Amino acid sequence: MSRTLKIALIQLAVGAKKAVNLARAHGKVMDAARAGASLVVLPECFNSPYGTQFFKEYSEVIDSANPGESMKALSNMAKEANVFLVGGSIPEKVSDADKLYNTCTVWNQNGEMIAKHRKVHLFDIDIPGKIRFQESEVLSPGNELTQFETPWGKIGVGICYDIRFPEMASIAAQSGCKAMIYPGAFNMTTGPLHWELLARARAVDNQMFVAACSPARDMSASYHAWGHSSVVDPFARVIAKADYGVIEDVRSSIPISSQRRSDLYTSASLINKSN
Amino acid sequence: MSRTLKIALIQLAVGAKKAVNLARAHGKVMDAARAGASLVVLPECFNSPYGTQFFKEYSEVIDSANPGESMKALSNMAKEANVFLVGGSIPEKVSDADKLYNTCTVWNQNGEMIAKHRKVHLFDIDIPGKIRFQESEVLSPGNELTQFETPWGKIGVGICYDIRFPEMASIAAQSGCKAMIYPGAFNMTTGPLHWELLARARAVDNQMFVAACSPARDMSASYHAWGHSSVVDPFARVIAKADYGVIEDVRSSIPISSQRRSDLYTSASLINKSN
Repeated sequence: MSRTLKIALIQLAVGAKKAVNLARAHGKVMDAARAGASLVVLPECFNSPYGTQFFKEYSEVIDSANPGESMKALSNMAKEANVFLVGGSIPEKVSDADKLYNTCTVWNQNGEMIAKHRKVHLFDIDIPGKIRFQESEVLSPGNELTQFETPWGKIGVGICYDIRFPEMASIAAQSGCKAMIYPGAFNMTTGPLHWELLARARAVDNQMFVAACSPARDMSASYHAWGHSSVVDPFARVIAKADYGVIEDVRSSIPISSQRRSDLYTSASLINKSN
Repeated sequence: MSRTLKIALIQLAVGAKKAVNLARAHGKVMDAARAGASLVVLPECFNSPYGTQFFKEYSEVIDSANPGESMKALSNMAKEANVFLVGGSIPEKVSDADKLYNTCTVWNQNGEMIAKHRKVHLFDIDIPGKIRFQESEVLSPGNELTQFETPWGKIGVGICYDIRFPEMASIAAQSGCKAMIYPGAFNMTTGPLHWELLARARAVDNQMFVAACSPARDMSASYHAWGHSSVVDPFARVIAKADYGVIEDVRSSIPISSQRRSDLYTSASLINKSN
């Protein structure tokens, strides 16, 4: 297994024209490859403005036999740049079910789709006076956790709000993943409160790398992304470029994986209660 | 249920003389009560220097019928100060088993012991060139999770290294705890890396208060505690004094407890794997 990986997070400026978004993503993926990246990540909802009113219009069926505009573009980018590509997410349409999902596709260097993750935990929040957003008004949740193989080890994928649920990263780490990648679009309220904290929390608890990739902030758009795409190492330090050897160092230094007391975590009868 | 609680964390200077440690703790608990605190927390290993070579000498049997010096002192402090007291921890001796535990006792305003937590996850780490410490050389691990009732709701207790295991706080939150309290003694290596991060991670994932109470730093001692005792609110902000109403605000604003997908977290068959 290769121990050194250069990863690029593309904090893409996303606008109203899908073709422009795809062309811009293509250019940035090529730039990243020229700079030496072998794994490139696009942000959540990279082909469409982020908003429940936009998802249907920008959605595509994800079908390798009959790929839509965004699927063709992602396959081409991965192949032309010769990189693994975590293709952010797009609104996915399921033609015969009238359902929409927020879906991440992952591509290998040959331009083949190797994984697909439908956002499991929909972004439904209501912080009075600050932000209300209800993805569930138009989206359906996925029902699977997602991992994919690379020359640098297995990697797990979640989308944005999925990062709030520690179980997803914990299961990925326990199944051998070396990293979690989250395309995400936190906002100007939850971004400063929790974006970096959650990435670092997943890293420290699971002693793995975490990458979180946001769209660029556009104050003229209806939704204002926080930005601050970042890569965190297994010591929970925010870094820019990672050497996978750090996982073994931290896991042997602070061996919580072998120290976990799984015998205690499921049996309510073991809880010491007063009175 | 009372919605406002003033909590005091006593970052106690701990030295080699047990009687001095107990007297100093008593004075600080009285000070905290005079300042309006209703719940007072002492740090890990508050009656003894922290080190495997000290635990046996400073240990006591924990037996309400025949209380040792530290147990008597804690009972008196709680009663005299009229506070709930999380009594940090002491080395506990089990006379007929030749075993030692790192044990936290909790006391009510009448000076009655209402809970006892034996550290479940022992502090065994080895960071080359920085710090090696192996509690398991002399201590045995506890086998129970611990919660206690207060007028401000149920509270969970862990000790120091227990904070690295998210399951403990997660189970506490799921059983209705409003806060986790961790007496702890992180060091000059893991303290700056992880002490505040872990407290904030437990708070953000479980939307609960977290209090972590360290001994004072003493560079003349063999173990150098990080200090930085802190209280974190359910939005994961570091605060000094807490209004429990914040729990409801954050839980209704970002309702992850009802959004948790427990159906996905246990079944390995649901994991999407490539290839």
